[in-house]
Amino acid sequence: MAEYSSILLEKAVEELSKLPGIGKKTALRLALHLLGEDETATEELAKALTDMRHNIVLCRHCFNISDESECSICTSAKRHNGFLCVVADMRDVLAIERTGAYNGLYHVLGGVISPIENIRPSDLKINELVQRVQKEEFKEIILALPATVEGDTTNYYIHKLLKDFGCTISVIAQGISVGDSLEFADEVTLGRALQNRKSFE
Amino acid sequence: MAEYSSILLEKAVEELSKLPGIGKKTALRLALHLLGEDETATEELAKALTDMRHNIVLCRHCFNISDESECSICTSAKRHNGFLCVVADMRDVLAIERTGAYNGLYHVLGGVISPIENIRPSDLKINELVQRVQKEEFKEIILALPATVEGDTTNYYIHKLLKDFGCTISVIAQGISVGDSLEFADEVTLGRALQNRKSFE
Repeated sequence: MAEYSSILLEKAVEELSKLPGIGKKTALRLALHLLGEDETATEELAKALTDMRHNIVLCRHCFNISDESECSICTSAKRHNGFLCVVADMRDVLAIERTGAYNGLYHVLGGVISPIENIRPSDLKINELVQRVQKEEFKEIILALPATVEGDTTNYYIHKLLKDFGCTISVIAQGISVGDSLEFADEVTLGRALQNRKSFE
Repeated sequence: MAEYSSILLEKAVEELSKLPGIGKKTALRLALHLLGEDETATEELAKALTDMRHNIVLCRHCFNISDESECSICTSAKRHNGFLCVVADMRDVLAIERTGAYNGLYHVLGGVISPIENIRPSDLKINELVQRVQKEEFKEIILALPATVEGDTTNYYIHKLLKDFGCTISVIAQGISVGDSLEFADEVTLGRALQNRKSFE
């Protein structure tokens, strides 16, 4: 006998538990939840997932996830197109948009350079970034990559490629988080916060 | 602009976050995971879920989830059909099967009597249980319902209906968990463990 009394249930649990962070127990709970709901609930979930997977593309300018070949940020007349913010991942676009502190354009690299994970510059949208900077006239390029060794490496690599194009290249600030006590900040962060001190306004 | 740069992604996140215990952030992580995998991964997940939802039925004898009208436990020649274990939920069948300590048949009620949640005896498979006990000849009926007020009420209710059919009716033991220290057991459990003490063998 199979683990469950139903092969169909077993298959559904197996597929659900392939998702990250979903174990067998959670998968079973999700499957039983769907069995307790109307059939349309399962159908709508399945349709939303396959529709998304089949039809989502990357914006041809910024490589953010998009429903069209040009995303809503790149085509928006309200965005300031003199600023280009370079991020690793589309989640970073979401995070920056939520701050409401930025109104320029984005460029999504799709990761950062990492010899350990075998991610080389050619695996990222770095060539596309250079071509974009050559073609469009940006006033400032803001590097907003993760504050990791890999992020720093990628910052350095991109800076070297772009430094002669005449636009300002900046990096987002690293320091202690707003609301944090110094005693709880790790040493590296606190060290950088000291290094990057600025004059009191 | 929508919260995400893609309506398709937004819809997928919305559907995923309807699942119990899945918030918006987890839903986004799951959706992005599927976008990073082959299309077949999403297709197989969607198919497994809809197949399950459309084709799973309840076994006509025990009301456990099943792919056929009779489940693999009810039709197995290896099961001892003199014993009937009454449980609230199909998850309880799985839990008892995992113990390896039981080799009889099951009857899944689909819940327990609960005035607060408005679950009446007629909402459960209790009539079907009585008919089954009348028709088949069971040696013992084991009530394995949750150790809650609702479980106790349901035990009492079923006992009243079945006590004149000539088969033994038993209830699973309540006491301290194996491996637990007394100091960590709650008072009610410890009280019952004392009440239900048995002579040392």
